[in-house]
Parts: sequence; structure tokens; C-alpha cells
Amino acid sequence: MSAIITLTTDFGASSPYVAAMKGVILSINPDVRLVDICHTVPPQQVLQGAQVLDDVTRLFPPGTIHVAVVDPGVGTSRPIVYAEIAGGRYVCPDNGLLGRLAERENPSKMLRVTNERYFRVPVAPTFQGRDIMAPVAAHLSLGLEPDELGPPLTELRRLDWPGAVKVANRIEGQVVAVDSFGNLVTNITREMLAGVPTDESVAIRCDEHETHSIFTTYAEQPPMTLIALIGSNDHLELAIVDDSAAIMLGVGVGAPVEVCW
Amino acid sequence: MSAIITLTTDFGASSPYVAAMKGVILSINPDVRLVDICHTVPPQQVLQGAQVLDDVTRLFPPGTIHVAVVDPGVGTSRPIVYAEIAGGRYVCPDNGLLGRLAERENPSKMLRVTNERYFRVPVAPTFQGRDIMAPVAAHLSLGLEPDELGPPLTELRRLDWPGAVKVANRIEGQVVAVDSFGNLVTNITREMLAGVPTDESVAIRCDEHETHSIFTTYAEQPPMTLIALIGSNDHLELAIVDDSAAIMLGVGVGAPVEVCW
Amino acid sequence: MSAIITLTTDFGASSPYVAAMKGVILSINPDVRLVDICHTVPPQQVLQGAQVLDDVTRLFPPGTIHVAVVDPGVGTSRPIVYAEIAGGRYVCPDNGLLGRLAERENPSKMLRVTNERYFRVPVAPTFQGRDIMAPVAAHLSLGLEPDELGPPLTELRRLDWPGAVKVANRIEGQVVAVDSFGNLVTNITREMLAGVPTDESVAIRCDEHETHSIFTTYAEQPPMTLIALIGSNDHLELAIVDDSAAIMLGVGVGAPVEVCW
Repeated sequence: MSAIITLTTDFGASSPYVAAMKGVILSINPDVRLVDICHTVPPQQVLQGAQVLDDVTRLFPPGTIHVAVVDPGVGTSRPIVYAEIAGGRYVCPDNGLLGRLAERENPSKMLRVTNERYFRVPVAPTFQGRDIMAPVAAHLSLGLEPDELGPPLTELRRLDWPGAVKVANRIEGQVVAVDSFGNLVTNITREMLAGVPTDESVAIRCDEHETHSIFTTYAEQPPMTLIALIGSNDHLELAIVDDSAAIMLGVGVGAPVEVCW
Repeated sequence: MSAIITLTTDFGASSPYVAAMKGVILSINPDVRLVDICHTVPPQQVLQGAQVLDDVTRLFPPGTIHVAVVDPGVGTSRPIVYAEIAGGRYVCPDNGLLGRLAERENPSKMLRVTNERYFRVPVAPTFQGRDIMAPVAAHLSLGLEPDELGPPLTELRRLDWPGAVKVANRIEGQVVAVDSFGNLVTNITREMLAGVPTDESVAIRCDEHETHSIFTTYAEQPPMTLIALIGSNDHLELAIVDDSAAIMLGVGVGAPVEVCW
Repeated sequence: MSAIITLTTDFGASSPYVAAMKGVILSINPDVRLVDICHTVPPQQVLQGAQVLDDVTRLFPPGTIHVAVVDPGVGTSRPIVYAEIAGGRYVCPDNGLLGRLAERENPSKMLRVTNERYFRVPVAPTFQGRDIMAPVAAHLSLGLEPDELGPPLTELRRLDWPGAVKVANRIEGQVVAVDSFGNLVTNITREMLAGVPTDESVAIRCDEHETHSIFTTYAEQPPMTLIALIGSNDHLELAIVDDSAAIMLGVGVGAPVEVCW
């Protein structure tokens, strides 16, 4: 069975930069299986990249190698890391991209990737995804022992992740992502909502907009209704049935969200 | 030879929701081959999804498993179906997505997918693509007997597909899709145009715009000319040579198209 | 090890037309490995397609088959060609798409693709990518001898590529591409810049904007600064740190760029 390498970047849909990484990988291991996770992470938005990695990579088979390039610091001294978290193997800049995953489970291995023997040379200072991360992942897929990559690391860079707060009969959080349907994904989790009523007695406010009840699916209310529900990644979501809440409400990442009961 | 699973959704180009489905599939069958058909079906436009499935999936090898998720009714009681049509195997909501294919050839098998043994649990009510359709397709790719999925179904939901009408020396139809070049694809087929002249004596009107003759390729007329031709999927198309007819004419899906001779 | 076929088109991200080509290829060789290079070449911009092919396909393993469809002349008498350049095998219209690659290294083989035995019939005059290039590539991936495809060709169509000029202490060039970060890629190469100072004494002008020094990476200057650097494909690039130079400067393909020292 061939190894799997996934790619997550902010290079844009159908970017030739992604294909450049694939060419480098296939030149080292023509037998590897490549899967695109997402290339439309907003440019240099590490936080949203971290959320995508957390939502999606955990669904892949154990041992899958996940390469992530959202890298505003490319060419500076920020390290490139290799980490093993919950069965997945990650190669990415150490800039918080693994922050959401590492909050959930401690990495079982962390290394700083420094061994130039596995790099493509010369390394272009502006495209380490192609010249360092892609070839390192390809060598790993061929069975390279991770310890060959460089010295151990004791800690990953943490992410400045906005936290939701629960006080008495109130949770205060924020919109942390907008999906392709325009649904507003918040940082309020299913766990935080345990014990909160889901009927009319609960109010959910986002910016100046308000709705009541927490539903389980979009189709429970008529088209064009603003509803709250717990989305498929276990976060509270605000949605307009059959339309885009982001566009209709004029709301985006960072907007305050409040749940009161 | 590995099985092939294709994916068609309205999740948007490079959506992490698509990757979530791929992770679930590969976790069940790491050896399957995944092919993206289209993820830019306009949100919840079942009719356009049905057209894409009809245009493209018929080109794949017999036995290919096609998963389609354009699903405004997710989480409601609309069934999920498995159907075999013209050698292809389909897993999708029963909402008309297979309507164009089934008009062309009767399904040789239709089942309602109900056996939770092949689902990912718990099933998120808002993402049955990931939790039902993806794992079911993966199990089928491993050789699961379709009859294990659930009870037979006697009829698929039909599609409310706008029909073109031919009366005397006139065909009245509509624009049913806009492709990525801005070409306006109509519901007037090559068959309906049999016997219709293709020279200057035929007039094609779309909204307030008019052109004459039916050409065989874009390059027969100078840039910026409005032309009519029969496109590669055997439907009449309106195009602006080297530009976007949709933008230049300000016309989209639903616009009336008339052929007179 | 399975053969690799790559696809480069102007069909748009996630286009069903690309999937149609994949279906045709997999129906002939279900075992081939498909890789997308880029489908967001601007419609019918052969020059930008030629640049993508040159930047990216050279990174793939020798023997890879690269199919490129940016084809404003589809259905006219322009030939379809097969060419071998620097270990890569190319199938595309003869309209300049291979112009950048062929400037760098002479093709070792050039054929006109005429043998209808390897076409999908009937050939739709508007979609030769699906009906000629895809099946021809699939047959090649199965081991078809290229000489079976048609007669030798003595020369590929050249590209009208804007050249940069170096005179005394000045290089005059142009923006030839805008990447997904909004960086402005020019036709001024690393070779032309050999011997040019990189410190404050060099001025780089683009349209009415000016900056000094040639840096090696984006992160050397504060956010929102206009900088010049040599990009990962060895061309001079203008960038706004952490933002889009194309949007901030209002500049696109064709804009004049001048380097003075």
C-alpha cells in the first residue's frame, strides 16, 4: 500500500505552486498518493490553517504525512518542524499551524528539520514548501527514520487562539471561520454548550443579529431564516437557511458571538 | 487495479469539506483512487449538479463509484440512494441529482441506503456526505454487496427540468448552465436541431440579443462576435468569441433562448 | 510503477471539463496517475500557460506525460503536437504553449498528432482536449510508440514572448505574471541581474512606483513595504510584504519594469 501525503496551503485553488511541490515529491517517490486538503486558506492566516488541519487531518489513516504551508515567515529563522500527533505525521513551519491539534493531544515526537541532505538544493528563500517541506515529506514516505531530520524540539509554537468564555448563563465567543456556504463557524464548542437549553429560551447574538433555539440541521427552518446549530466539526455555527450568513449579515471572522439563557 | 471513487459537490473549489470526505474514504480503503469531478456546482443547485453528473460521469470506466453531495435537504427525511445506471454506480441524496442520467437510461438497480453498519458514527445531521455517503462508497469499493445497504427503491425522485419545446419553425428553450468561459449552455439538444438549417436563415435569440447561423467551432468568427454552436456535450450554446457571453450579454441560467428558421 | 499524466488548462478551478478529460483517460488506462498542474491559466492566455509549463513541469519525473489545453484556436487547422523536451513528454496544441520550454532546451522529438485511431470519436470540434489530447496521452501512458501518432514536425510554433533588454546600467522588462499572492513576476531573470548591485544603489521601478535594493525574502522588510526580490522561479518579482502588490499598486501583466543602478 502506498504512503499518503496531504497538502494544505494558502496558495489558492489550482495554484501552480502546489503542483511544483507535487512534482518534487513525485520525483523522489513516484508511488506516493497525493491528496489536497485545502489551498484556499486565506493568505498567511495561520489560525485558519490550524483550524483546517485540526478539522480534517484527524480523519486520515494513521501514518499519513501532512504537509502544511501557510508561512508568512518564510526565509526567516522560524524553524521547520516534524511532529507526530495522534497518529498523524506533520511537516510545516513552526508558527502555530499545529496549535489546535497539539491543544487536543500532546505530540508524541517533535523535531526541528535541519538536515539539508533531504532538501532540494539550492533552497529558494521564498519557497521552502517546494525545496524543504516537499522533499522531506517524500523521503519520509519512502521510510526515512524521522530522527534523521534534525534535533528534538521541546515545544511547538503556540497559537494565539481566541478563547470563548463561559460565565453564569452566558458564553462569549467569536466567529473563527467562514465556510464556502457562508456559514459562520464560532469558537464555541459542543462541550461548552452541554447543559445549555436548545429551545426558544436560548438567545444567540452575532454582531447586531439575534436568533433563538439551537437546531440540529439547516432544513428545520424555512429558507432565509437565521439559525444557530452545532456544525459537523462540533462548533456552534450561525447559518442562513439556503443562503450565505456571511453575506446576508455582513459578518466575518472576528465578529463577537454571544449565547445567553 | 484499484477501484475509483469520484466526488461531485457544491462545497467550493479546494474546500476542506471535500478533503474530510476523502480522509474518511481512505481510512476505510487506503488503496482507492479518488477523482474530483466538480466542487463548484452553485450552492444547492440540484439541477446543475444533475447536469454535471450526466455530462461527465458517463465518461468514466464502468464500475466507477460516483458520490454526489448537493443536498439542500441534509438532515431531513429525504433518503440517500444507491443506484446503478449505464454501468456507473451512484451514491447520493434522492433529490433529483440522478434525474438527467435516469431520463437517458433506466437504472438497473435502486436501493435506499439505511444500514448504519456502514456509516461513520455518530452521524452529524449537517454532513451526511462525510458520515454516510463517503463511508458507504468506501465499503462498496472494497467489494461490499450493494444489497447490504438497504431495501430496494422503486423510483428515484424526478427532476423538475425545464424542457425545450419545438413547434413548427421554432424551438423555445432556456439557458441551463454557464461554463467557466462564460458560454451559455442551453437545454436545446443536437437531436432537436436535426433538420434545422445552420446557415444565415436561422436566427438564435437570447434575451434581447440575436445572432444568425449555427457554427461548429468558436474560431470561425472574429473575436467579440456573438455566435451559436453545438457544444461538446451536444447542447446548443451561445458564446462570444474570445470573451464571456454571460458577462458581455448580462445573461445567466434561466434566460429564454429561441431558435427560428 | 504507474505512468503519470499531468493536466494544465484554462478551464477554471474544479471545472467539470477537466474531469471529462480524466474520465476519458481513466477509461483507456485506469491505472494511470493524474496530477493537476493548474486550471486557472487566464482564459486563452497562451503566454501564461507557457510560463506555468516551464516553471512546473520540469520538476516532475522524467517520462511524465504533460497535457496542456489553452487553445483559442480549437477546431481550426492549427496542429496538435507531441514533443519531448528535457525528459518530459508533452501533448498540446501547437500555439506557443511549449515556447518557453523549447527556448531553454531543443525538443528531442516533435510530431504532428494526426492518427485518428487514438482519438475518441466523433471528435467534438470545440473540445479536442477531451477527444484528442486526453486519449492520445492515455495511449502513450500504456506504452504506445510516439511515432505511431503522426508525421515528424520540424519546428514548434514560437511564442511572442516579451523580452527584457539590458543596456549599460539599466534593464527594461515587464510584468509577465501575477501569482495568487498578488506578487508581480517579471521577465527579468537571475542571469540578467548577475553583477547588478543588490543594495540601496539599485532602483527598481514599476509603472509609477519605485523601490530600492533587491532582497532575498519577503520577511526582511516590514508589512506593507514594496520590495523587489528574485522569486522561486529565478525571475525578479515585486511584492508588497503581507499584501497584494497587484491590488495595492493597481498593476498587472504588461506593466513596464525598470532596474537602474
